[in-house]
Amino acid sequence: MNKSMIRYILSWILTLEGIFMLLPWATGLFYHEDSAWYFLLLSVCSICVGLILTRFKPKRTVFYMREGCIATALSWIMISLVGCLPFVLSGEIPSFTDALFETVSGFTTTGATILNDVEALSHCMLFWRSFTHWLGGMGVLVFLLAVIRMSGGSNMNLMRAETTGPSVAKLVPKLMHSARIVYLIYIGLTVLMLVFLLAGQMPFFDAVTTALGTAGTGGFGIRSDSIAGYSPYLQWVVTVFMLLFGVNFNAYYLILFKKWRQLFHMEEVRYYFIVVLAATALITANIYNTAVSFEQNLREAAFQVASIITTTGFGTVDFNLWPETSRLILVLLMFCGACAGSTGGGMKVSRFIILIKTMIREFGSYLFPKSVKKIKMDGKTVEDEVIRGVNVYLIAFVVVFVASMFCLSLENVDLVTNFTSVAATINNIGPGLNLVGPMENYSFYSNFSKYVLMFDMIAGRLELFPLLILIYPPTWKGIFKKTKE
Amino acid sequence: MNKSMIRYILSWILTLEGIFMLLPWATGLFYHEDSAWYFLLLSVCSICVGLILTRFKPKRTVFYMREGCIATALSWIMISLVGCLPFVLSGEIPSFTDALFETVSGFTTTGATILNDVEALSHCMLFWRSFTHWLGGMGVLVFLLAVIRMSGGSNMNLMRAETTGPSVAKLVPKLMHSARIVYLIYIGLTVLMLVFLLAGQMPFFDAVTTALGTAGTGGFGIRSDSIAGYSPYLQWVVTVFMLLFGVNFNAYYLILFKKWRQLFHMEEVRYYFIVVLAATALITANIYNTAVSFEQNLREAAFQVASIITTTGFGTVDFNLWPETSRLILVLLMFCGACAGSTGGGMKVSRFIILIKTMIREFGSYLFPKSVKKIKMDGKTVEDEVIRGVNVYLIAFVVVFVASMFCLSLENVDLVTNFTSVAATINNIGPGLNLVGPMENYSFYSNFSKYVLMFDMIAGRLELFPLLILIYPPTWKGIFKKTKE
Repeated sequence: MNKSMIRYILSWILTLEGIFMLLPWATGLFYHEDSAWYFLLLSVCSICVGLILTRFKPKRTVFYMREGCIATALSWIMISLVGCLPFVLSGEIPSFTDALFETVSGFTTTGATILNDVEALSHCMLFWRSFTHWLGGMGVLVFLLAVIRMSGGSNMNLMRAETTGPSVAKLVPKLMHSARIVYLIYIGLTVLMLVFLLAGQMPFFDAVTTALGTAGTGGFGIRSDSIAGYSPYLQWVVTVFMLLFGVNFNAYYLILFKKWRQLFHMEEVRYYFIVVLAATALITANIYNTAVSFEQNLREAAFQVASIITTTGFGTVDFNLWPETSRLILVLLMFCGACAGSTGGGMKVSRFIILIKTMIREFGSYLFPKSVKKIKMDGKTVEDEVIRGVNVYLIAFVVVFVASMFCLSLENVDLVTNFTSVAATINNIGPGLNLVGPMENYSFYSNFSKYVLMFDMIAGRLELFPLLILIYPPTWKGIFKKTKE
Repeated sequence: MNKSMIRYILSWILTLEGIFMLLPWATGLFYHEDSAWYFLLLSVCSICVGLILTRFKPKRTVFYMREGCIATALSWIMISLVGCLPFVLSGEIPSFTDALFETVSGFTTTGATILNDVEALSHCMLFWRSFTHWLGGMGVLVFLLAVIRMSGGSNMNLMRAETTGPSVAKLVPKLMHSARIVYLIYIGLTVLMLVFLLAGQMPFFDAVTTALGTAGTGGFGIRSDSIAGYSPYLQWVVTVFMLLFGVNFNAYYLILFKKWRQLFHMEEVRYYFIVVLAATALITANIYNTAVSFEQNLREAAFQVASIITTTGFGTVDFNLWPETSRLILVLLMFCGACAGSTGGGMKVSRFIILIKTMIREFGSYLFPKSVKKIKMDGKTVEDEVIRGVNVYLIAFVVVFVASMFCLSLENVDLVTNFTSVAATINNIGPGLNLVGPMENYSFYSNFSKYVLMFDMIAGRLELFPLLILIYPPTWKGIFKKTKE
């Protein structure tokens, strides 16, 4: 294994995190908050340590999928460990486990909180929480690839390990340019949303944190009632932008370069919007008698559907109180997730499309045993490797899910709470049902359970394999042997 | 499609069912019950209609997987429709839907009941209920193949559609002999169990119905408290035999012919017993403080584990009241199911072995990209077609499960009840949790939901594909066209 390459990447990521921490420091300075200085302290430390370590360039830059997975998994663990320190040092979240939970929840864009009173946090901490969403949404390694010219041609393995979806393709031949285009679109959309929020007279700080949390499909609110307290206009803006950030970013690239033909071939985006519309219509009908007006009814349904399918996790209403059909639809949407190549979590619409097509192909082989059909998507043949990957993803998902459920069951909390806790963390959503409903939080769980849920959040964000490879014993076989491999 | 061949098979199945109905008639005669005469009436009708239709032999006996699936699915629907008539005609279960539910539940060896007071049924009806378990357990088409010399060499497709497990192999080269051996082992084990039950002074009628219900891994009891009222010795006998009927019947064939080497290579049987032991140990520890003695504690845990993993569904205790960890273990066992080639339902241990091995192979491909390993089971390579089948089974299972959950959610019953209702029917178990717990029944569901659950029972028993092919629209494309295909 190329250990020095992994070390090199980790040191760059640490440096970047140090630089990012200057932003909450500036926020704190603006609001005259003492906590801000912890950010400066950590920032300076991270940058120094990081930059020193990047000086030792690796001799070999060869880099396989194994190294890609491990570098990615360790990066995410490291940024969470460093990122939680401001909360602990400032005493605003005194427990280390709680602070780590909040930070993991931030970076993985889950948005599950252990805070009973979020409004008690200082501005710089609130900003950092929301900013972690934004960074985690598109990925810190993708950011690294966009700004640092990495030598060696196998960096695609890094991109692949962090970007979501069953198969990752570069937009343009050069990886660095691809990563830059994605980040530019990301920044552009975030700024656009900010403008729309400010136009609706949302206070500036609220608008910034809401835009960051929506862009990363994270879901940390800065108010205890999440988005419920804002005007209907603002709720609609958030709804629309949640949906937009759940779209495959390739679509925006195609729009920018006016490749309409390819755009209309994107099956995933089409099915994504069909699911959203269908779910919204069903829930609107199902909760018809609970709302005051049709507009409110539709707004509540659309907001919650957008929030869950994009795995953002903002809330405007306590859907825990909705009838069973609506609750079930939301649970199903939790697993569905948004599009591949978006900032959203979940299993991704494209995986479901591939799974359903695989099933239909099998039916076909029963009816016409001699015909072997290839599975197509967006007009192109899906490679067998991708299909196998999607199938294994489903298996791994079930395994991690069941193992987590088992660990949580030791708490003796009801099945629905535990089930939706795991579903809401592994799919990076945030709120679940019952005790972890939208008006509740995760603080009642034991530390052990919190670590299980943190594992699920990172596993879910990285789409299982990087973290599973990290803990798979054969990965570490002979790791301390000096090999020239 | 070879319609006349399907018609031919259906008429033989109808004839057989008519013959089988003579047994409950005899039972009723013995107990001087008037209801018995309905069995004679239906028996005579079925035999006449069936025999007349079998006179028209099909010209072509060519028979593909499609015909196998449709013949099997239609056979199961037909035997359920005919089998429920005695309940309706005699007025002992006046509602047609309820009677059909009970019969489908019987043939599919589910054991879910809609009866509030099972002890009110007459002996002949109770016998018929338990006898449907026995018939459905090993399969009526397999019985047909064992007794009728079918012309044409593609009857393997019938066997494949009805027998459980990811791949079906003949024990001996001739299919008819294979089917006979399986049924002889089945009858032998049932009689052996009967002897053990009678040795424990169980009343004769109770012993017969319990043996039939255990053999088919069905679970209909003839008492409202299921097996709880019998002595500890009898409970242990039932526990052991439930486990034995959950073993792949190939194992008994290997034992009979003293092929020890092959026997010890059967991974599935080994893992099956490991899961049983582990689950029993965990639950025994988890419910430690609820029982009076260690023996009772162990007995309750072992009985419930055996009952759920073999998908029998007998009960000696209300596990609904157990702590969450135990409840979760039971829910997981519901999905696990017994061995392939047994009378048990569920997803089958061998499928899980293949799925886990597929996942581990994928990890391997991350670590050593150049090595492509074959998946092995019982020392033999598993064919790609089987692996694909298992993957598609998992997808189809999730699809049917989610669709059923959605239909049930219209009832506005709690999530756990609906979830375990679907789980308990699609896996052919019987009792679930909460409102469908072991001391409850399915009578509160609407007729619509009952039909959904019946669909799940048959889909689960036939391992999804036959029923899905039956309702898949392209199957019926051009069905009314006269083709010479």
